[in-house]
Amino acid sequence: MSTTNPAAGALWQDLQRLRERSPLVHSITNYVVMNSTANALLALGASPVMAHAVEEVEDIVGIASALVINIGTLSRPWVDAMHLAMAAARRRGVPVVFDPVGAGASRWRTQVCRDLLAATPPTIVRGNASEIRALHIAGAATRGVDSRDDAEAALEAGQALAASTGAVVSISGPVDLIVGAGGVLAVGNGHPIMPRVTGLGCAATALTAAFAAVNPDAALAAAHAMAVMGLCGEEAAAHSAGPGSFQVAFLDALYALDAGTIRRRLRIERRPTLH
Amino acid sequence: MSTTNPAAGALWQDLQRLRERSPLVHSITNYVVMNSTANALLALGASPVMAHAVEEVEDIVGIASALVINIGTLSRPWVDAMHLAMAAARRRGVPVVFDPVGAGASRWRTQVCRDLLAATPPTIVRGNASEIRALHIAGAATRGVDSRDDAEAALEAGQALAASTGAVVSISGPVDLIVGAGGVLAVGNGHPIMPRVTGLGCAATALTAAFAAVNPDAALAAAHAMAVMGLCGEEAAAHSAGPGSFQVAFLDALYALDAGTIRRRLRIERRPTLH
Amino acid sequence: MSTTNPAAGALWQDLQRLRERSPLVHSITNYVVMNSTANALLALGASPVMAHAVEEVEDIVGIASALVINIGTLSRPWVDAMHLAMAAARRRGVPVVFDPVGAGASRWRTQVCRDLLAATPPTIVRGNASEIRALHIAGAATRGVDSRDDAEAALEAGQALAASTGAVVSISGPVDLIVGAGGVLAVGNGHPIMPRVTGLGCAATALTAAFAAVNPDAALAAAHAMAVMGLCGEEAAAHSAGPGSFQVAFLDALYALDAGTIRRRLRIERRPTLH
Repeated sequence: MSTTNPAAGALWQDLQRLRERSPLVHSITNYVVMNSTANALLALGASPVMAHAVEEVEDIVGIASALVINIGTLSRPWVDAMHLAMAAARRRGVPVVFDPVGAGASRWRTQVCRDLLAATPPTIVRGNASEIRALHIAGAATRGVDSRDDAEAALEAGQALAASTGAVVSISGPVDLIVGAGGVLAVGNGHPIMPRVTGLGCAATALTAAFAAVNPDAALAAAHAMAVMGLCGEEAAAHSAGPGSFQVAFLDALYALDAGTIRRRLRIERRPTLH
Repeated sequence: MSTTNPAAGALWQDLQRLRERSPLVHSITNYVVMNSTANALLALGASPVMAHAVEEVEDIVGIASALVINIGTLSRPWVDAMHLAMAAARRRGVPVVFDPVGAGASRWRTQVCRDLLAATPPTIVRGNASEIRALHIAGAATRGVDSRDDAEAALEAGQALAASTGAVVSISGPVDLIVGAGGVLAVGNGHPIMPRVTGLGCAATALTAAFAAVNPDAALAAAHAMAVMGLCGEEAAAHSAGPGSFQVAFLDALYALDAGTIRRRLRIERRPTLH
Repeated sequence: MSTTNPAAGALWQDLQRLRERSPLVHSITNYVVMNSTANALLALGASPVMAHAVEEVEDIVGIASALVINIGTLSRPWVDAMHLAMAAARRRGVPVVFDPVGAGASRWRTQVCRDLLAATPPTIVRGNASEIRALHIAGAATRGVDSRDDAEAALEAGQALAASTGAVVSISGPVDLIVGAGGVLAVGNGHPIMPRVTGLGCAATALTAAFAAVNPDAALAAAHAMAVMGLCGEEAAAHSAGPGSFQVAFLDALYALDAGTIRRRLRIERRPTLH
């Protein structure tokens, strides 16, 4: 990690741009995290819009700067809307971030993910190690939506997924790994209490979309989002007594994140690509 | 603003009545804010019930003291239920508060609003400036569900909407404007951080319904709800460090709101109707 | 209440087991409480998964250690999924906890409950007094989803329901009553502010499922869950200023609950069965 931390300047620039433009992020996401996702986007400086009816998703994509597709609590009508929205986003050049929540937990869920990815490759896929593996490996098992696995365990699957879809693949874990055309970015920020709060993975996906709205380099956008999650998670953990007060402090930290904190604590590094 | 603040007595009386009766507010509302809306109603002293199946909405309206219709995350089955519930409420004399969340953001959304308003005029329409304009003006554009616009920008549209539907129109903004048969009420309470928290507009709609359940003067009920939102927003902002701690302090403030705070800080004024 | 409090040892043992195994609790529950339920399960040490599509609920039950069926915001497709999931759980020996939220508030809601109970008797039914009465007595009225009634008012209905279904019946109130084959357990922990926060009843149901995943004695599992709710409610009330800060402190208390607090404050007693 360089002492001058040149990555900090790039993140701070993206964050300032995001706060100025307040990009509208259209989220077709799961019921569990709609409120916490909307609040994370607002606290960061972006604007959320949730809409999932087949009658309107294409119109909503038309006013959005990024699209989130998160399959957490999927059902047939939502899958139809996801197909329409992803296709509309691709036609309009709107970046799409796909979150395969719980891929591997049921055969149908895994199949829906594969169908969506095959129909319209997203800009970025963001998931935990078991989800990324489930997308790549037939029969890989996921235990619900948790992830306490290392991202490393899914690096090979992520690289194969990136190669086959052209998407950047962002794998979350104690160290997040972002797999892009140019190699692998590793983000070391975060705190062990984070898996004890629901929806932080989904918030990471939404923040990834917000950064993709202001930075056309998808790998860097993904890394910036994961870094902001991790930095604010560290900040929140330092000012809370458990997962309840953590959530409160996390939103406050997103709102307050400044250049100094980023400069002092950011841990992004580019890995040599030996593969 | 009068120094004796006669409006404070009327608000305090409504609030006491509400806390005694704990009116049941039936909310057919969006997924994003269901939890925060229910908590705002409970903290205020009302009772929430959420139910949206066509098989039961008429029964639920039959035990409710007010009905909220909020189209935030609408889909076809929900629209059907909204039509049934609004008609049942009208038959039974249950006040209806309609929130056209995101009207203007898609053609379908705007059309659904117009159909619902035409089928059963509500007691009160509560929205932000761009939503109220979208209901009135064909082709007016809304940028998602945000509103940072002045309510003034929608005053003319609100007056036309009030005239055509017979509903009181409550337009939120830095100063909220309530348009009724007797003129315009302006509510000056609030805090700039409030648009950075999701669902406060929807909470305002739910509180409007709770006040409408205890005060048959719909314009006054709407003004009291907006004033309570604003007063508790000011209180919460004074005791918080960002949008996370704001939400916590806001619910605590709703629960604790007392006569003294209302008397000292309430800012409601009746505008001379020059129009 | 014994001074050595032998019940404390059994609860602490279950809680340790739960934190070690982190059982996966599949929740088919209502929109209002999905987020707060998931967070309560995570703070306790369990793992939540929410999934409701008919295409996948049987697969998800297959990886779960317990199933929650909560009808709060039911609609036809969800009822279909509940039938499938309950039957799958029974086939696999996965404990099922059924929460008849708002039973009695509409004819359809009451009928759906009776149909589900008749098709597949659950392991545990957890509801408030008016809900339990509505399941048993044709025409009993429920006022929404609130419960400020004593559990005693539903003891007879609970005993009849337990006898007819074979389920343990857990009735919440200022004192919770758990009706099982061996008699009645009474849990005296809790705090009067708890009904002013939405979703705590639903969280109690989810925690009941988590305890049922680690303790085959369903009555004891239900009592342990209600006791944990009550103990953490007392703890949270002591460190909060209203329903907003209560929720934060409640999650922190679930996360931190220790043997000492349980030993000092647990109030479970077995009632002599005079009936």
